[in-house]
Amino acid sequence: MENEVLKAIRERRSVRQFLDRDVPDELVREVLTAGSWAPSGLNNQPWRFIVVRDEKTKAAMAEHTHYGHTLRGAPVLICVFMDAEASYDRTKDAMGIGACNQNILLAAHSLGLGTVWLGEILKDKEDVRKILGAPDTYELMAVICLGYPEPRDRGSERKPLEELAFSERYGEGFSGPSR
Amino acid sequence: MENEVLKAIRERRSVRQFLDRDVPDELVREVLTAGSWAPSGLNNQPWRFIVVRDEKTKAAMAEHTHYGHTLRGAPVLICVFMDAEASYDRTKDAMGIGACNQNILLAAHSLGLGTVWLGEILKDKEDVRKILGAPDTYELMAVICLGYPEPRDRGSERKPLEELAFSERYGEGFSGPSR
Repeated sequence: MENEVLKAIRERRSVRQFLDRDVPDELVREVLTAGSWAPSGLNNQPWRFIVVRDEKTKAAMAEHTHYGHTLRGAPVLICVFMDAEASYDRTKDAMGIGACNQNILLAAHSLGLGTVWLGEILKDKEDVRKILGAPDTYELMAVICLGYPEPRDRGSERKPLEELAFSERYGEGFSGPSR
Repeated sequence: MENEVLKAIRERRSVRQFLDRDVPDELVREVLTAGSWAPSGLNNQPWRFIVVRDEKTKAAMAEHTHYGHTLRGAPVLICVFMDAEASYDRTKDAMGIGACNQNILLAAHSLGLGTVWLGEILKDKEDVRKILGAPDTYELMAVICLGYPEPRDRGSERKPLEELAFSERYGEGFSGPSR
């Protein structure tokens, strides 16, 4: 079974090396709009985005992560926040933002762009929030690096479904036919 | 700008009315596999799935949500758990599971199936865990109803990007050209 959506889901990879080529604002709008179409509890849409292109801003942010070189090498950073004023349940809103991020990754991939979703920088999320001048109701949830991918093979591995999925009750292996 | 991925992201809707038509296990496998291709911090893959088709199990679960009729009317329920033994950071793992769920919704949509992601049932997550016989390291994060959608128009609304996205610093409107 195959279609463009399943293919994008399976073939998307984290991209950490970008070409020195700008990403038009129109494409950034397209991926953010895709993010905004994620589902959220009560349709509360708790995600907010700050788009960073400025080298000085990137350099200041890069001080707060071990992956500063990746961050500085990306033409665009999408900083994803949860707005506490829009939030109603931290766990559910975090899942909603995860769904939003996945839409961003898939939309970018479908447009020939590459992304990497950075989480380690959250250890200094308050510093990054201040660098960006975001209100104190905004909590940094992710930084997504965006750009045209440097061509290379990027592998990845997943556990087999047999280790993840069960039928009816835990312990009964999921019994679908193998592909 | 348009492609099958962007179209699926924008056209997917929550489906609460399903046809009385079974979903082959092969398609269930396909959507779970798509879920498993989500990104996760340290690639820890904290998601686990229990697939429910049994009417008695659905009826027992339906006692724990106001949306019991939706749950009973779906041929397949995908119960998504976070395994505490695989987890390393609750917020990041919740986002990873949100990304996994979004892959499931999009994959199902691309295969002509409908879904709704239920969260309200989490208020009784321990009861549902016990009904399904899942280990106590498993925490229920979502129940996704899956089936062939009853045809009808399903609208949805999102905030305009101007309310969600900012350039460089909070307060500066994101300046991309309008579509």
